[in-house]
Amino acid sequence: MNQEVRLCEVGPRDGLQMAKGMMPAADKLRWIRQLADAGLREIEVGSFVSPRLVPQMADTGAILPEVLKMDGLTVCALACNLKGAIAAHEAGAHVLSFPVSVSDTHSRANVGKGTDAQLEVLASIVDWAQSQARPMRIDAAVATAFGCSMEGAVPVRRVAQVAAAAARAGADEIALADTVGYAYPSQVRDAVRATQDAVGERLAKLHLHDTMGLGLANALAGLDEGIRGFDACLGGLGGCPFAPGASGNIVTEDLVFMLESMGYRTGVDLPRLLAARALLASALPQERLRSGVAAAGIPRTFRA
Amino acid sequence: MNQEVRLCEVGPRDGLQMAKGMMPAADKLRWIRQLADAGLREIEVGSFVSPRLVPQMADTGAILPEVLKMDGLTVCALACNLKGAIAAHEAGAHVLSFPVSVSDTHSRANVGKGTDAQLEVLASIVDWAQSQARPMRIDAAVATAFGCSMEGAVPVRRVAQVAAAAARAGADEIALADTVGYAYPSQVRDAVRATQDAVGERLAKLHLHDTMGLGLANALAGLDEGIRGFDACLGGLGGCPFAPGASGNIVTEDLVFMLESMGYRTGVDLPRLLAARALLASALPQERLRSGVAAAGIPRTFRA
Repeated sequence: MNQEVRLCEVGPRDGLQMAKGMMPAADKLRWIRQLADAGLREIEVGSFVSPRLVPQMADTGAILPEVLKMDGLTVCALACNLKGAIAAHEAGAHVLSFPVSVSDTHSRANVGKGTDAQLEVLASIVDWAQSQARPMRIDAAVATAFGCSMEGAVPVRRVAQVAAAAARAGADEIALADTVGYAYPSQVRDAVRATQDAVGERLAKLHLHDTMGLGLANALAGLDEGIRGFDACLGGLGGCPFAPGASGNIVTEDLVFMLESMGYRTGVDLPRLLAARALLASALPQERLRSGVAAAGIPRTFRA
Repeated sequence: MNQEVRLCEVGPRDGLQMAKGMMPAADKLRWIRQLADAGLREIEVGSFVSPRLVPQMADTGAILPEVLKMDGLTVCALACNLKGAIAAHEAGAHVLSFPVSVSDTHSRANVGKGTDAQLEVLASIVDWAQSQARPMRIDAAVATAFGCSMEGAVPVRRVAQVAAAAARAGADEIALADTVGYAYPSQVRDAVRATQDAVGERLAKLHLHDTMGLGLANALAGLDEGIRGFDACLGGLGGCPFAPGASGNIVTEDLVFMLESMGYRTGVDLPRLLAARALLASALPQERLRSGVAAAGIPRTFRA
């Protein structure tokens, strides 16, 4: 049994992109450094998308050179098309996160292309990247893998098919993403098993939201099926554009508490991680940061 | 596999006893009726404890006759000693919930007696109840089963010992309670297994808090081990007197969503359950009600 769990902190991207208020680049850099110093080895620092549509991410290119100086940090960035992927590569990103929705309707709304067309874009990005001197890992985020606010239920069989197509297109790793927060534990188990049958260990990660309060229960279901990678967000920031008032990503602090309590190693120092909330709170005073561990304090029984 | 899950709504007792503000008896009755009408078949309606220490529960004796008129409802009440148990029986309670802490220090702080002395009180209550014409089910809540804010870690072996002693004293059912909210999923599994080895199916329920954000993950761990009974609280009310700022019990709404999504039957109508929040919110305006499902809305994929 592999006791190491790889966490990717997506706060600087998924957490900030829908936040009320803008975090200045200098604050982002200080915050990312605090997150890295707390032991997070992989951070999604931003996205290369339209600054008109997502102004919070307009400075991603500017902050990357500074972030790349942080020792031992794997720097991830999101892009939705070849132009963004090239920009991410030029800026020096180690990992590209690329969304492919299982729901054709969501895919069109999110990236302006249906699922199959987006899989072709993925293939073209892989081709382009393979011709470059510097390698860049390309991760496919299989979005709406647990339901879609527009199409409704998403069949598990179709999730595995899209994951297999992303693998054939050349994605290095696959993540299943609960984009709208509809997932529940038995569904997570079913989708993970079907996807493992289709792409094996290339299924490396779950991206879960806490929309219905089930985020960590869903993470536990994934763990039980052998998943050893999770996205999470400090303070549980991030929202769901299709569910106003919904809470965001699973809370990094609480996930670390759960994993370390259970004997998994995350590499994260929980007190230092909690300390990184202060900067986030002061930079985004309108956002309510969540976390049970932050509210109640680390229990005296915690073994880390 | 038993697909029925028995929920006990503890809001009127555990939820209100630490709330800011007092809910008038008439509101309590209207709220309990709404909960029962939503399909909750078991409700802990109050406690027979010192009105000086817990003024919010002073009207429990007064509301019981009205609650007992509600068709098909199993009416539970908490008491910590023989005097309270007799009062609960005289008022007509169907079930007595009786706390026995695994932590001797917590037991003394909570009920003024150590664990062994409290087990003797349990035996005396069982003896007394058996001499009465009307039966009353007696449930032992094995408190601090997953850690204690005063004693720290609580050995699983000791949890099973206290549960076994409660069974020998004559408790009809046993619940393991995460009184201070320190539980994590692998610990829940270990404690449930050890307690099942000791008392078999008499271990009927988990009482979980969401202090560290792990409440539903812990519930899932219990489900996986065959537990088919849970306490929960509408809006996640209830606190932890030893962790200021901590969130309360697991949220009934979100638990019902998880269970029903997974194919378990709770008997609860989720939209009607959500509607019962309005009265609670207006009666206790200072309390923040939690629930992912309430904030985001029931997803269109929900199967119930």
